[in-house]
Amino acid sequence: MKRKTYRVTFQPEGRSVFVLAGTKLVEAAGQAGIILNQPCGGEGTCGKCRVQVLGDAPEPTPSDRRHLDAAALADGARLACQLAIRGDMVVSIPQETRFFEQMVLTEGSGCKYPFEPNVRKQFVSVPAATVEDQRSDLDRLKDSLGAGSRGAVAELELVRALPGILRSSDDGVTVVFEGGEIQAVEPGDTTGKLWGISFDIGTTTLVGTLMSLTTGQSKAVAARTNPQVHFGDDVVTRVSYIQNHADGLDRLRKRLVACLNEMILEMCSSAQVDADSIYEVTAVGNTTMSHIFLGIDPRPIAQAPYVAVFREAMDVKARDVGLETNRNANVHVLPNIAGFVGSDTVAMVLASGMAREDDVRLGIDIGTNGEVVIGNRERLIACSCAAGPAFEGARIRYGMRATEGAISKVVVNDSIDVSVIGGGRASGMCGSGLIDAVAQLLNAGVIDETGRIVDVAGAGHSLPDSLRKAMVEFEEQPAVVLVDAAQSKTREPILLTQRDVREVQLAKGAIQAGVQVIAAEFGVDPADLSQVLLAGGFGNFIRRSNAKRIGLLPSVSTDRIEFIGNAASTGAKALLACRSCREEAERVSRETEYVELANRPDFQSYFMDAMTFPPS
Amino acid sequence: MKRKTYRVTFQPEGRSVFVLAGTKLVEAAGQAGIILNQPCGGEGTCGKCRVQVLGDAPEPTPSDRRHLDAAALADGARLACQLAIRGDMVVSIPQETRFFEQMVLTEGSGCKYPFEPNVRKQFVSVPAATVEDQRSDLDRLKDSLGAGSRGAVAELELVRALPGILRSSDDGVTVVFEGGEIQAVEPGDTTGKLWGISFDIGTTTLVGTLMSLTTGQSKAVAARTNPQVHFGDDVVTRVSYIQNHADGLDRLRKRLVACLNEMILEMCSSAQVDADSIYEVTAVGNTTMSHIFLGIDPRPIAQAPYVAVFREAMDVKARDVGLETNRNANVHVLPNIAGFVGSDTVAMVLASGMAREDDVRLGIDIGTNGEVVIGNRERLIACSCAAGPAFEGARIRYGMRATEGAISKVVVNDSIDVSVIGGGRASGMCGSGLIDAVAQLLNAGVIDETGRIVDVAGAGHSLPDSLRKAMVEFEEQPAVVLVDAAQSKTREPILLTQRDVREVQLAKGAIQAGVQVIAAEFGVDPADLSQVLLAGGFGNFIRRSNAKRIGLLPSVSTDRIEFIGNAASTGAKALLACRSCREEAERVSRETEYVELANRPDFQSYFMDAMTFPPS
Repeated sequence: MKRKTYRVTFQPEGRSVFVLAGTKLVEAAGQAGIILNQPCGGEGTCGKCRVQVLGDAPEPTPSDRRHLDAAALADGARLACQLAIRGDMVVSIPQETRFFEQMVLTEGSGCKYPFEPNVRKQFVSVPAATVEDQRSDLDRLKDSLGAGSRGAVAELELVRALPGILRSSDDGVTVVFEGGEIQAVEPGDTTGKLWGISFDIGTTTLVGTLMSLTTGQSKAVAARTNPQVHFGDDVVTRVSYIQNHADGLDRLRKRLVACLNEMILEMCSSAQVDADSIYEVTAVGNTTMSHIFLGIDPRPIAQAPYVAVFREAMDVKARDVGLETNRNANVHVLPNIAGFVGSDTVAMVLASGMAREDDVRLGIDIGTNGEVVIGNRERLIACSCAAGPAFEGARIRYGMRATEGAISKVVVNDSIDVSVIGGGRASGMCGSGLIDAVAQLLNAGVIDETGRIVDVAGAGHSLPDSLRKAMVEFEEQPAVVLVDAAQSKTREPILLTQRDVREVQLAKGAIQAGVQVIAAEFGVDPADLSQVLLAGGFGNFIRRSNAKRIGLLPSVSTDRIEFIGNAASTGAKALLACRSCREEAERVSRETEYVELANRPDFQSYFMDAMTFPPS
Repeated sequence: MKRKTYRVTFQPEGRSVFVLAGTKLVEAAGQAGIILNQPCGGEGTCGKCRVQVLGDAPEPTPSDRRHLDAAALADGARLACQLAIRGDMVVSIPQETRFFEQMVLTEGSGCKYPFEPNVRKQFVSVPAATVEDQRSDLDRLKDSLGAGSRGAVAELELVRALPGILRSSDDGVTVVFEGGEIQAVEPGDTTGKLWGISFDIGTTTLVGTLMSLTTGQSKAVAARTNPQVHFGDDVVTRVSYIQNHADGLDRLRKRLVACLNEMILEMCSSAQVDADSIYEVTAVGNTTMSHIFLGIDPRPIAQAPYVAVFREAMDVKARDVGLETNRNANVHVLPNIAGFVGSDTVAMVLASGMAREDDVRLGIDIGTNGEVVIGNRERLIACSCAAGPAFEGARIRYGMRATEGAISKVVVNDSIDVSVIGGGRASGMCGSGLIDAVAQLLNAGVIDETGRIVDVAGAGHSLPDSLRKAMVEFEEQPAVVLVDAAQSKTREPILLTQRDVREVQLAKGAIQAGVQVIAAEFGVDPADLSQVLLAGGFGNFIRRSNAKRIGLLPSVSTDRIEFIGNAASTGAKALLACRSCREEAERVSRETEYVELANRPDFQSYFMDAMTFPPS
């Protein structure tokens, strides 16, 4: 009994997703990993989410007519926040509508960071030495670069190569600057070849973006499963591996770096870029991933009192960490906040602009740990909530990651309708499906405020037949059938069990209590927050109202809950594109107050209260 | 017919030299490589050259009585500039009398540079992390170091080692600072182990000094012949070797570095210092030696238009150049001035204080090239004079280096008396003996102003018999016997030939003309110079009046000619002891005007004039 789904294909990526009828186009784009501008929060008032429907476009809405002229409308232009999907469609997303590109790269009101990369190139003609001009090679080079370059430092390796390069390049040479340093000198004019890569090093997923550092445009993206999953699914098991194997750190590091190098190759090949033209890499990740990437022992993070070895940003040479870019490329690892609040959180703060505004906002990135940060430009407070892996599908009877076959959406009216990633039969449910199921069954009265699945014979008696039929017993406890055996891929029913609901209560309770502790510390009621920012791949799929319904998100009005995309990646890209952002990152890293929840006497009582569901 | 010589032994070195009767003790010490303070120029008026004669001391001079009390005099104290040697003696030289130690290391009027090394250590107790104090390892370390260390940069390698070091050092750790950077962190309190080495990398000779960077005292010295002599005696032949062999640069570099490493071992063993406790190395040399040491192609220096690859100071890691000190030690190669005026000249300017005073002074370092610099704090001008190797014994019939058996001093009165290094029989003559011979024979009328050895039958007729007997014919030209066959080691007479005199004329003419060109450029008459500073090992042995007599030095009064010791080594030691001197070195390097003599139309006429000897 599935509701109708439609296929939406996005250009120029050519990426497709399947969505339930009525889904807004902006949400479908999010599912495809394409984040659109929504300064007005999807109200149809700002006109910033303009896309172009290829082929037959639906009838324009009043908002469309207000923001787009007749010619544009005739050409298929529509606002993505207003377009409810009622059929298969192909949509082209212009650059200026894309969230990241606009935020980082263009000037004007939407611009948050100027485009000013840390590496730049300058082509210069260096006069040959003569008997009248006996300045040294390095002096002639620096003098040609202009007064500001007199004090630029040049490394030994570069000076060793210099006489050969100058004497083989009659036309001139290209100098690569990294901050105030001369990173390299190349024969001829290579100013057109200037690339950078940003990496988001997740525990599970690695995402890389190849960016032109002359235009700021992203030219290729690569994603891979972090090969360290062979050593354990989560951070704790990987650190255990290091604890138990003398060469454990080196093995984990090399696996990771080998995979990053494959991604570099893939992106370079797809964009037809020489890896030697990559002069800078930025990297974000949780604190343990950052440590392992740099070959720094992460064990202090995993053992009491849980501290990082380094907090500040680290700048190292690509050759020193084994990245196969230009060997002199700078690798900038963003600063973290604490052992359990990594540079991915710093990146989220940067990407959202939280640290630059007066409004008090909350940022949440939900993974195995939920990192939560609250505040404004005056003060920021962060904590890490041990949510556990429920929202990643673990410890849930039919849980799975958000891949093909996962129920990603559940709607309960008279019946239970599900939406499956990839459009085929369901084999389990991912985090967003789990939240939907619990929230919708709470609304339907199938689950009560304490988290109990109601007795069909008792309270459940008032439910519609179709729901009552879905209520079964599983391992001597109640459960709800989301997909019949006949409809599932595995030919067994897909259930939400009582134990699953308890896991959701523990997970959301941990996050909810964490939010309450730091909100109290900041002196703000969560309900008064001007905005709640949802980051990370998971946030992408969450239905805001359902997440609020179960108490995972504070009870602010839905239009104040904003999905900000993969903020970790966005932040890494921002720091690749903008050198001066690094100061803000350092400030956020240094000044954000970290609250260790385990240490707070008030946490346990908040947690006990947060375990129940809010009244409807 | 040799005049009587005496053996003088210096303590605590235990070094001995043989000198002619009447030689001043300060000069004998110089011959032994021990340079004494002489702020008054040897007038006996300042009392700074106090030494202690062990055993029977000669009768005190009036100057001795003015500066030393009765108890000191009874204990053998004497002023070295006043003591004329009339017998074998053993003398102890106190630290405060030594030229370098006083100049660099003590406070007060004699102090030119403060003792403030570039590397320093700080022992700190770093609080262990607790649940209440979850700052990262690096943050806890930096915070413990004090506010000024917040921004200190730490390299990846150090951060990798940090968690292990902090957790194995309950008492505290020692931080090694290099400028504003944290160079290393060591377990426990190692503040007592802080050493540096200065190297003077000469074409022929390598000299190293091991200095305590906690007290500034030199604790060991090592000297070796530069093993690159296997590839050629001078800079030109070595660059030819590089030109003709693909791996030539690498071979020359490795030979040199292997020898420097032997010297490090030797000094460490003699001072009982662990090579790992050496955190900084400074190095001076001519520009070609500096290039080869760093593995930078020196060929541009040797080919028109004769330019260096680098001029400014280079700071590299010991591990990157292969020095076996602490692997993180900083190696500071002093800046040079031009392809033919190296950092040894910058060191001379620094050691002499030329760049800080109003007086216009001339500095000369005579080797195969004579580097000459003139000026004051307003302006400095330098040139390199192609003197050729005559003063090093080459191209002279009985020439040799200043080693055992070399005639180092010649006195001509009625007879010809010589002094031989080591006190045995002569086997040749070194540069100072050559200058003496020519000057003394000029005075005696044996050589005329044009450089001709006079005809015994003609002008020579008025000479005393003893001299006329010494005048012989050699290869159809006149010559003078300095040592009879019966008295020489080789059983053949040691001659000064007419061709030798011509070589001296060419060599001294080149230097004299160079001095005249840059003096004219500066706008000063060489005779009006307030001081002439003689640097280098060779300057040590020169009799000032004789050098003036042949025109090698300007005709200023002898008390204005000062020997300033191995100024290159002194400068390298000064920069090891004093971080802020590096700015002065950079300024001298950058601002000293280099005059290319080959390029000057006036050089040839000065040179032609300078070839003749001044009238007596």
